[in-house]
Amino acid sequence: MAQLRIALAQVDTTVGDLAGNADLVSTWTKRAVADGAHLIAFGELTLTGYPPEDLVLRRSFVAASQRALVALARRLAEEGCGEIAVVVGYLDASAQPAPNVGRPAGEPQNAAAVLWGGEVVARYAKHHLPNYGVFDEFRYFVPGMAFPVLRLHGIDVGLTICEDLWQQGGPITVARRSGVGLVLCINGSPYEQGKSFQRDALCAERAREAAAALAYVNLVGGQDELVFDGDSLVVDAAGELVARAPVFSEALLITDLDLPAAGSGPARAVSGAVDAGAVDAGAVDAEDGTTMTVTRTVLAAEPLAPFAPLPPVVADRPEPAGELYTALVTATRDYIRKNGFSSVALGLSGGIDSALVATIAVDAIGADAVHTVALPSGYSSGHSVTDAAELARRQGTRHAVVPIEPIAAAFRAAAAALGGLHGLADENLQARVRGTLLMALSNQHGHLILTTGNKSELATGFSTLYGDSAGGYAPIKDVSKTRVWGLARWRNAAAEKRGEVPPIPEEIIVKAPSAELAPGQLDSDRLPDYGILDPVLDDYVSHDRGRAELIAAGHDPAVVDKVIRLVDLAEYKRRQNPPGPKVTSKAFGRDRRLPITSRWRENPPA
Amino acid sequence: MAQLRIALAQVDTTVGDLAGNADLVSTWTKRAVADGAHLIAFGELTLTGYPPEDLVLRRSFVAASQRALVALARRLAEEGCGEIAVVVGYLDASAQPAPNVGRPAGEPQNAAAVLWGGEVVARYAKHHLPNYGVFDEFRYFVPGMAFPVLRLHGIDVGLTICEDLWQQGGPITVARRSGVGLVLCINGSPYEQGKSFQRDALCAERAREAAAALAYVNLVGGQDELVFDGDSLVVDAAGELVARAPVFSEALLITDLDLPAAGSGPARAVSGAVDAGAVDAGAVDAEDGTTMTVTRTVLAAEPLAPFAPLPPVVADRPEPAGELYTALVTATRDYIRKNGFSSVALGLSGGIDSALVATIAVDAIGADAVHTVALPSGYSSGHSVTDAAELARRQGTRHAVVPIEPIAAAFRAAAAALGGLHGLADENLQARVRGTLLMALSNQHGHLILTTGNKSELATGFSTLYGDSAGGYAPIKDVSKTRVWGLARWRNAAAEKRGEVPPIPEEIIVKAPSAELAPGQLDSDRLPDYGILDPVLDDYVSHDRGRAELIAAGHDPAVVDKVIRLVDLAEYKRRQNPPGPKVTSKAFGRDRRLPITSRWRENPPA
Repeated sequence: MAQLRIALAQVDTTVGDLAGNADLVSTWTKRAVADGAHLIAFGELTLTGYPPEDLVLRRSFVAASQRALVALARRLAEEGCGEIAVVVGYLDASAQPAPNVGRPAGEPQNAAAVLWGGEVVARYAKHHLPNYGVFDEFRYFVPGMAFPVLRLHGIDVGLTICEDLWQQGGPITVARRSGVGLVLCINGSPYEQGKSFQRDALCAERAREAAAALAYVNLVGGQDELVFDGDSLVVDAAGELVARAPVFSEALLITDLDLPAAGSGPARAVSGAVDAGAVDAGAVDAEDGTTMTVTRTVLAAEPLAPFAPLPPVVADRPEPAGELYTALVTATRDYIRKNGFSSVALGLSGGIDSALVATIAVDAIGADAVHTVALPSGYSSGHSVTDAAELARRQGTRHAVVPIEPIAAAFRAAAAALGGLHGLADENLQARVRGTLLMALSNQHGHLILTTGNKSELATGFSTLYGDSAGGYAPIKDVSKTRVWGLARWRNAAAEKRGEVPPIPEEIIVKAPSAELAPGQLDSDRLPDYGILDPVLDDYVSHDRGRAELIAAGHDPAVVDKVIRLVDLAEYKRRQNPPGPKVTSKAFGRDRRLPITSRWRENPPA
Repeated sequence: MAQLRIALAQVDTTVGDLAGNADLVSTWTKRAVADGAHLIAFGELTLTGYPPEDLVLRRSFVAASQRALVALARRLAEEGCGEIAVVVGYLDASAQPAPNVGRPAGEPQNAAAVLWGGEVVARYAKHHLPNYGVFDEFRYFVPGMAFPVLRLHGIDVGLTICEDLWQQGGPITVARRSGVGLVLCINGSPYEQGKSFQRDALCAERAREAAAALAYVNLVGGQDELVFDGDSLVVDAAGELVARAPVFSEALLITDLDLPAAGSGPARAVSGAVDAGAVDAGAVDAEDGTTMTVTRTVLAAEPLAPFAPLPPVVADRPEPAGELYTALVTATRDYIRKNGFSSVALGLSGGIDSALVATIAVDAIGADAVHTVALPSGYSSGHSVTDAAELARRQGTRHAVVPIEPIAAAFRAAAAALGGLHGLADENLQARVRGTLLMALSNQHGHLILTTGNKSELATGFSTLYGDSAGGYAPIKDVSKTRVWGLARWRNAAAEKRGEVPPIPEEIIVKAPSAELAPGQLDSDRLPDYGILDPVLDDYVSHDRGRAELIAAGHDPAVVDKVIRLVDLAEYKRRQNPPGPKVTSKAFGRDRRLPITSRWRENPPA
C-alpha cells in the first residue's frame, strides 16, 4: 500500500476568463500545498470555463487555451507549487487532425493536463462525449483514444472526464485493465434536483468496475443557464463513500488515501519495467467498440514515507427545498456578477412569483442592490400594491410605485384609429407597458431586469411576449408553480428558525393566483389547478411522453388534452428572437451558439 | 444496357404534417405514373418533414411515422401506383436498440423506404450524420450500417441520404463495390448563396467515385429558419449533368436513363445468383472505419422493352440576386402559410429595410394581406412619412399612420418619478412603443408581425430588444445591409424589364440610412460605412475568424476592433428569451428544441 493526500478543488470558473481561471488554479493550489496535498484536481475545462459553446470552434480561442496551460505550469512552479501534481481541464486540439466535412473545425478536444515541475507532463482527451439534453459535445469535440496513467508516489493514477463515467466501456474498462489504484474524474456536471443521488450510485459502480478508488471533482456556481452544485466526492474501490464536499460553495476537499502500490493491482494487463521518467504504452480493448492506448508517465516511482492521515470530511447534504433554493440564489448571483451587473430591478405584482424572485435576489446580492417597482393598472387589486410594499419593507429593497394607466390609455387612444384593442390584446398591452418601463429603467440605470415567470406559466404560454417575459434573467423559469409555493414556505420557515421575520408576507403565499389583467381574473379561469397541472407538465415537457403514455400514467384525459394544446401553442413563445430564413453559411443566431456569460474578447485589453 | 424513367419529386413538405405529406406523395406519384415513370423519389424525411428537431425524440411521433409509411404503401397500390417504385424519407427507429446514456432516446433513424406493390420492400438508414452549422443529427439519430441494393427492371439501384454524399467513404464506397448502376440520393439540403455550385461539383465527384449515375432530389420551400431551393439534378457516371429541376418551385423532374444492366458493372464485389424476390447480403469495408452490409432486393429482374427516351430537362439557374430574392419570398410565404397566418403587418419607417421587407411580403402573399403602418415620432423627418406612403401607394398595401409621440410622452411622464429617461434609454423607448403597437395589432387582428432588421444591424446590436426586433418573422435577418440595397435595385430593375412601375421609390434607396431616434441621427455616426463593415462581419460572424486572422485578411485594424466589440456585445440580444437556471432534467427552452412550424399534434384532431 502507498499513501497519497489528494485535494479536490471545487471552484467557480467563468467561461472565457482564461486569466481569471488560471488565477483560481494558482490560489487554490497554494492552499493545497499549504495543506500538504500531493495531488490537486480542478473541474472540467477549468481554464476556459464550461460550457464554452461555439467559442470552441474559434482557433484563436483554442490557441489561447493551449498557451494559458503552458504558462500556468511554469507559473505554478515559480510560485512554489512545482512538486504537487496539478490536474486542470483545458481546451486542446487533436494532434492528428483528420479534416473532414462534419467534424468540428480545428478538431478541438475537451482535455485534462497534469502539471508538474513547471511542465505539462501528461494530457488526456475526453473519450465519451455527451450529446443529449444541454450537451452538444459531438458538435464541439473529437474523442480521445489515449488513457494516461501517472505513477505518483508509487500509486498509478488514471484520468477521466465527466461523461467517461456515464457510459459503459471506455476509460473505466481501461482503468481496470491497466491496474490503476486511483481514478480521477474531473467534471462539469450541472445541478438537477435529485441528481446527487444518481452521481453517488454511479461513482460507486464505476469504482467497483475499475477496482480502484475514485475521486470526483465538480465545478460549482452559475454559468448562463447551468448551475453547478459541486458535490465533489471520493469513494473507495468497494464503492463506499470516503469524503464529500459541500454543495454550492467553493471548497477544497482534502482526503488522505491508502492505496495499492503500483504493480500490485489484481488486473495489471499491461506490464513492463517502469523507471522514473519512462513511458510504457499499450493498446487495450476498451469494450465499447474502440481500442485505447495506455500511456504511462512516472512522476515519482516510490511511495512516500508513512504519515498520519487526516480524518475524512463528509459534508451534510441540505434538504431538497433548501438545496433547490440555494441553487437558484447561486445561479442568480453568478449571472449578475459574471455579466458585470451590480444591481437588479423587477416588477412586484403582489403575487407569489415576483415575491420569490425578489427574495432570491436579496439573498443573492443584498437588498440595497435590488430595485422593486409596483406597476399597478386599473385592474390591480388594492392588496397587490400593499402586499408588494410590505414585502419591500420587510426585505429593505429600494421600492417605487408607478401606475401604468395613463400609458395604457395613450396606447388605447392611438390604437383606436386601427380598430381598438379588446380582450387578450388589451391584457397583453398592460404587460408590455410594464415590460417597457422596466427596460427603460434598465437602459437608464444599468439594472439587470429579472423576469418572474415560473415554469408552469412559461410551459402553458401563460405570459406575454415582450411583456412579463422581457428582461435579462429568469431565476425561476425552470421551477413549477407548486415548487414556487414550497420554496416560499421553506424560506419563511428558515427565517423563523433563525428568529428572523419571514421575508414573504403570508398574504402573498395564500392568495389565489391572478394575472390581474382583466376584472376579477384568476389563473384557475384558464388553467387546471396547479396541483393537477404540474405533474402533467413534468411528464410532457421533461419526459417527452406522448398523449397515450400520459393517460396510461393516470392523468385525466381532459387535462392531458388541454395541457398538450397549451404547451404546443406556447412552444413558439420560447423563441422571442424572431426566426428568419438563413441564406449564408452562418446566420446571426441559430447556427452560431456563443455563451452569454463570457470574458473572452478577441480584442486586446484596452 | 437497360432503360429506366425516373421522376424526382421536388416537393414542399411541412414538419409534423404526416397526413399532408402523405397526400403530397400520393399526388405526385400519380403524376409520375401518368408520365410513365418507373421510379419516383422524394426528399429527405418526406413523411415527417425536415428538420423535425426534438419531435424525433418523442416515441409517439416515431410510431406515427412508422404507421404512416405502411399505410402509404397500401394507399399507393390502391390508387393504382403499385407498379412504380416509390422512394420516400421517413422517421424510423433502429431494430437493434442498444440503449445507453448519450444515445438518442428510442434510437431513431433518418430513413428512406422503397414502396412497391403495396408493401415496404426495402429500408435504408442514413449512414453519415451531419452535426455542424444548423445540423444536429448526432443528437437525433443513430447511423445505419446497411446498404440496400434494389434490382429494378434489370438495373441495380443504391440508396443514400444527403450527408452520405458530403463525407468520404461509407455508402458511396459501398455503392461502387456493389456495382450499382444508379445511386439515388434523397436530400434536405438548405439553400445558401452559392451552394448550388458546390452541390454540382459534389454530385459529379461522387458519381465518378461510385462509377454510377447519380440522381439527387432535394426538398423545396421554407421550414422555420431554413429554406430549401430544390435544384434537384441527375448526373451520369462520368459526372456530366444530365438534367436539372428549377429552383424554389415544386417540380417533377422526369429523366430517361440508359444504364448498365445489373451484374455487368466493373466492380461487382458481392456476387451471387439473384432471383426475383431473393436477397443476397454481404459485408463490405466502407473505407470510413466501418463495415456496411449490402442487402439485395429484386423487384423486377429483367430490363424493360426498349422505349423512346424523352429529351432531358435542364432548367436555367437564376442570376444570384434573383435567386436570393426568390429565396426570401419563398421562405416568407411558407412561414406565413405553414403557421396558419393569412396576413402580415409591419412598420414602414421610410428606410430601405422596411421597404424591402414590405416588397417581399407583397410578392409572397399579395398586397391585400399586407398591412403597413408608419409610426412617426418627433424625430422622424417629413420624407420618412411621405416615402413610406408612396411605397404603400405603389404596391397597394393597407396603410395607416399612427404618431407615437403621445405614448412616448406618457412613458416619459411616468419615468420622471424614477429619474427620467435620457439618451439611449429614450431612443429605445421609441422603438419599444412601436413594437408594442405592432404586437397589439397582431393580437387584435391576427396579423403576423414582420420585423425589418438586417444582418448588419443585428450582428452589431444596432436594434432595440423588444422594439424593432419584436415580431414573428424576420425576412432579412441573414441579409447584409449591402445586399439589402442590391436586392432593392434588382427588384426595381426586374419590374422595369416587365414594364411595371418600380415598387420601391428611388428616394428610399438613395437616402443616407438613419434610425431617426434622435435629432439628425445617421447610421454612420455609430457604424463604419456598410461597404467596409459588411466584409468584416462576414469574416467574423460567418467564418469565425479571430482578430489576428481578420487583420491578416486585410481589414483595417481599427474597424476590426470596433466590429468585434460591437458583435461580442450584441451576441446577447440574440437570446431575447431570458436565460434562467436549469434545475430539472428538461427546462422549458434550451434543452427542448421543437420546430416552430409543425402540424404535429399529440391531441387527436378535434
